[in-house]
Amino acid sequence: MRLIRHFKYATSSILGVVGLLTLSGNLLADDGYHAQYANRFEVLPAISPIPANNSLTESKIELGKMLFFEPRISGSGVISCATCHNPALGWTDRIPRATGHAAQVGERNTPTVLNSGFFAAQFWDGRAADLEAQALGPIEADIEMNMSLDDAITRLKGFKEYQDAFARAYGGDGEKQITPNNVAHAMASFQRTLNTPNSPFDRYLQGDLAALTDQQKRGMALFADSGCNACHSGPAMTDSYFHVIKVPGSTDLGRFLVTKNEADKHAFKTPTLRNVAVTYPYFNNGGTATLEEAVQVMGKEMLGREYKKNQVADIVAFLHSLTGEMPHIEIPALP
Amino acid sequence: MRLIRHFKYATSSILGVVGLLTLSGNLLADDGYHAQYANRFEVLPAISPIPANNSLTESKIELGKMLFFEPRISGSGVISCATCHNPALGWTDRIPRATGHAAQVGERNTPTVLNSGFFAAQFWDGRAADLEAQALGPIEADIEMNMSLDDAITRLKGFKEYQDAFARAYGGDGEKQITPNNVAHAMASFQRTLNTPNSPFDRYLQGDLAALTDQQKRGMALFADSGCNACHSGPAMTDSYFHVIKVPGSTDLGRFLVTKNEADKHAFKTPTLRNVAVTYPYFNNGGTATLEEAVQVMGKEMLGREYKKNQVADIVAFLHSLTGEMPHIEIPALP
Repeated sequence: MRLIRHFKYATSSILGVVGLLTLSGNLLADDGYHAQYANRFEVLPAISPIPANNSLTESKIELGKMLFFEPRISGSGVISCATCHNPALGWTDRIPRATGHAAQVGERNTPTVLNSGFFAAQFWDGRAADLEAQALGPIEADIEMNMSLDDAITRLKGFKEYQDAFARAYGGDGEKQITPNNVAHAMASFQRTLNTPNSPFDRYLQGDLAALTDQQKRGMALFADSGCNACHSGPAMTDSYFHVIKVPGSTDLGRFLVTKNEADKHAFKTPTLRNVAVTYPYFNNGGTATLEEAVQVMGKEMLGREYKKNQVADIVAFLHSLTGEMPHIEIPALP
Repeated sequence: MRLIRHFKYATSSILGVVGLLTLSGNLLADDGYHAQYANRFEVLPAISPIPANNSLTESKIELGKMLFFEPRISGSGVISCATCHNPALGWTDRIPRATGHAAQVGERNTPTVLNSGFFAAQFWDGRAADLEAQALGPIEADIEMNMSLDDAITRLKGFKEYQDAFARAYGGDGEKQITPNNVAHAMASFQRTLNTPNSPFDRYLQGDLAALTDQQKRGMALFADSGCNACHSGPAMTDSYFHVIKVPGSTDLGRFLVTKNEADKHAFKTPTLRNVAVTYPYFNNGGTATLEEAVQVMGKEMLGREYKKNQVADIVAFLHSLTGEMPHIEIPALP
């Protein structure tokens, strides 16, 4: 996995250099920012790292897509992964806190699944290490989909089409292949394809100096100079690590509830900044509606500084450049 | 509208004859059924009739698609048309009765929107004459999306992207064009594209004698000979008219609640049989889970006869041949 990851970054870097050299108008030119800042960020690849124990195949992706849209593995029969991770809304729900089974409202904001294959920890509190470990939790959670895994597996086994799809994905007897582990692997495979490459910022990093406006470049510089990318690092602009933060209105103990370690009280995983402009509202409790407010909160809470109005505007303009190409997903016809 | 409709049928008939003549193996042949039964049914066209007051344009269809998937015109912010009319589930929800705002359960089964442009009345009780008149009801219904039209319009006006989309669809000042009437017209336009042509039965009607199995042909013959297509008539296999029927478990007064006419007590609109195999469960209360049971209920209630087991199996096989090509819909990225 590490090898693949390095290979991808190497490829991105080469593409970046080629891009820079071939932009005739900007040949070896600089805009006063690129030479200084571009190497402090990473381009987002189109495919996230693939773990050795879950090869990425077309049949698993197709099956994972069906399962992602499948509401019949919920207690009510009407809630699927896509209900809260709504593809029409940046693969999240754009409400403060998730609404699940029987219209119950959870404690936390729904994170987008976009680019989640680049995260080294899943959920706000990191209680799952990877997408495979994450996939089944929401099915069983009583305030989310509220169905036991046994019932979900039994329900899937009832469809000949799922038996066939599991046989295509995993070989052998399809009905026997309908297991929690294989469900999780298929969903994880599908999610690894939900990436958003080619944002204006990525095009800029690769040498298209006109891909960002001057204001966005100022925002990028201020973002880096402020140290924001200490935590918002890597291709998905998250270190997948946990940092103590008390955002307005939140009393959530966060990572502490997983580790029982005092130091983890109110610690949450650094959220990705990719597509942050379309995945509002913000923070673990979804209590902050706009990017402007979110930038101010981060300045105060994490950096102990108060940004001026024009600085906030510059950073927000930069954050808008992180919206990439959305995956083109046709809704599957379920059995 | 009538002209277009007739033109389409004429085209279908011509295609049918051409199909028959060009099927080398079956040239002028008959299978013992086609000559006798094909003329008692109608081919489903790819586009439904277009009313004179709502021309079908690409920009209206695109806008209607956005609105169809838009949950922010619901009180909770999480329910859109696509929640109950789920594209993954035959554009219905495959549960007995619709689950709406705050997990409330309605009185009736969600009808599919597939081919609904062919209906001459909308809703189970026909309280709307066409798709334009139908579109806004579920937004306002307190057990469905639970948002006043005023609030919905205000919310849409808040998005620059919707202002642009309404300007593209209707010309002029986009913000001023965001009206209930224009919302309804756009949604109706989108729904008129959600048709399912080229089912095995349609291919059979057009001359592909191998498109149905022998059992399906027996089912078709029994269906016609029993008089089922007296009501299940026309391209969508519904007369869009109202018939008194008390299905197991239902006390719903149906059409009477609209007309207050005694004769309409327990009367419901004939549902389409197109895609009936993928739009279970059945009847106004969704109380019948399988096609086998549904056929038996219809025999008893509407025809006063009891079908034998093999007859039920034949009709059910025929009904499976009415599943057409599902529309290929890519989920829009909403503003």
